[in-house]
Amino acid sequence: MAGRTKFQKAMARTIGSNGARTAEAIRQAGVKLIYKHGYEAMSLRQLAAEVGLQSGSLYKYFENKQNLLFDIVRDHMEDLLGKAEADLAGITDPLARLKTFSAFHLRYHMTRMAHVFIANMEIRSLEDEHRAVVVALRRRYEGLLEEILRQGAEDGVFQVSEPKVATYAIISMLTGICMWYRPGGRLSQDELVEIYTGLVVDGATGPGPATAARAKPLEAVAAQPRDSGTRAKPRAARPKTARA
Amino acid sequence: MAGRTKFQKAMARTIGSNGARTAEAIRQAGVKLIYKHGYEAMSLRQLAAEVGLQSGSLYKYFENKQNLLFDIVRDHMEDLLGKAEADLAGITDPLARLKTFSAFHLRYHMTRMAHVFIANMEIRSLEDEHRAVVVALRRRYEGLLEEILRQGAEDGVFQVSEPKVATYAIISMLTGICMWYRPGGRLSQDELVEIYTGLVVDGATGPGPATAARAKPLEAVAAQPRDSGTRAKPRAARPKTARA
Repeated sequence: MAGRTKFQKAMARTIGSNGARTAEAIRQAGVKLIYKHGYEAMSLRQLAAEVGLQSGSLYKYFENKQNLLFDIVRDHMEDLLGKAEADLAGITDPLARLKTFSAFHLRYHMTRMAHVFIANMEIRSLEDEHRAVVVALRRRYEGLLEEILRQGAEDGVFQVSEPKVATYAIISMLTGICMWYRPGGRLSQDELVEIYTGLVVDGATGPGPATAARAKPLEAVAAQPRDSGTRAKPRAARPKTARA
Repeated sequence: MAGRTKFQKAMARTIGSNGARTAEAIRQAGVKLIYKHGYEAMSLRQLAAEVGLQSGSLYKYFENKQNLLFDIVRDHMEDLLGKAEADLAGITDPLARLKTFSAFHLRYHMTRMAHVFIANMEIRSLEDEHRAVVVALRRRYEGLLEEILRQGAEDGVFQVSEPKVATYAIISMLTGICMWYRPGGRLSQDELVEIYTGLVVDGATGPGPATAARAKPLEAVAAQPRDSGTRAKPRAARPKTARA
C-alpha cells in the first residue's frame, strides 16, 4: 500500500463496497483506455462514459488521472511481486527456483497483456514520487531472479558472469510473450512454458551441461562485484530524459 | 518505399533539399514527441512549435499526423531490415550468422531507443493499410533469424524445436536492452554484446555443447511442420483487438 495517498485511504474507508466496485470498474476502464490510446490521450470524459458516470463523479473515486495511473501500475507490480514470492516459497534449489520463476512470469504475462503494456510503457507518465515507488517494486521483483542466478552461480549450477544483465535479458525474453501470444494458437500455454523455460535454463547453465559446470572454476563470477549496476539511470526514467 | 503515398512522392519531387531537411526535422521532432507523450496525445501544434513552423505549414511536408507516424515506423523497419541483411551478407555458417544477427540487433537497439519504442508501441495507432506494411517488414526481419535457427537445427548445430517461438524469444531478449542500457555504464557495448550473444548461443545450442549436439537425433525439430505459426493474429493487431 506504499504510496497510496491520504485521499485514497480516506476514500477506501468511506465509499464502502458499492464504491469499491465502482472504483474497480473505473480502474478496469482506465486499463482498457490507456492500453488503447495512451495515458496522455485518455480523457476523463472518455473514462467516465466508459463506466456510465458523469465526469464530475470520478473524483469521488480517484483524486485525478495521475493517481488512477499510479494505482493501476502499483497494484500490478504488487500483485506480480506477491504472487512470484508465493510461488517461490519453500523452493531452495536454484535450478528449481529458476524454472518456477520463469513459468510464473510467463503464465502471468500471458494473461495480463494490457496491465503489462501499461506498466512498461507509461512509467514515462508517472510523476517522480509515484515513479520511485513503482521502480522500487520493479527492482524487488528483478531482485528475485537476480538472487536465483547469483545463488546458482555460487553453487556452480549456472554459468552467469553478470547476474544483473542476465536478469534484464531473461525478463525481457519472458515478458515478450505477451506481445504475440493468443489463446487458442497451435501451442498450449504448457508447451510455451516448456520451450521458454528451456531457453532460460540453457542460457543460464551455459555451453556445457549443468552437471559439468559444477566442476569448472567460475572466475568470471567470483571476480564480479556484487552490487555494481550497469544502469546509469533506472529504466523507468527513460522517456523523461530522452533526447530523440 | 512501399506504402509511400502519392502525396509524399510528389512532395519528395517538389520540396527540394531545403524541404527535405525540414521534413527530416519534422520527423525527428515527431519521434521525440511521440516517444514522450504518445502518438494520440501529440498535437500538430506541438510538433510545429518544436521545429519553428506554423501548424498550417506542416501539411507541405506531411499529409497528416497518421502519415508522419507511418513514415517514421516504416523508415525504421526498412533501415533495420536493410542493415541486418547487409551485415549477414556472405556469412553462411549458422552459428556465425546467429552471432552476427544478435550483435547487429543489440548495437542497433542500443542507439535507437526512441524509434524502437515507437515502432513497438504505436503499431496500435497505425491505420490498417499502414499497419499491414509495417507488419510485413517486421515478418521479413523476424524471418532472417528464424531461417538461421532452422538452418542451424537442420545442420545439427542448434537444438531448437520451435524456430518461430525461439525467434520471438530471442528478439524480445535482445530488444530489451534498449529499456535499460545507457552509454557510460559499467559495461561497454562490446561487453554487453558478448554477454547477450552468449545467452542467445547457449539457448540455441541447448544443454550440451554444440559439437555434442551434432550426434543427437533431432526428432523434435523434424516433427515440426515448417510453416505453422502459433500466433492467432499478428502481434501488431493487439491493441486494436484488446479487451482489457
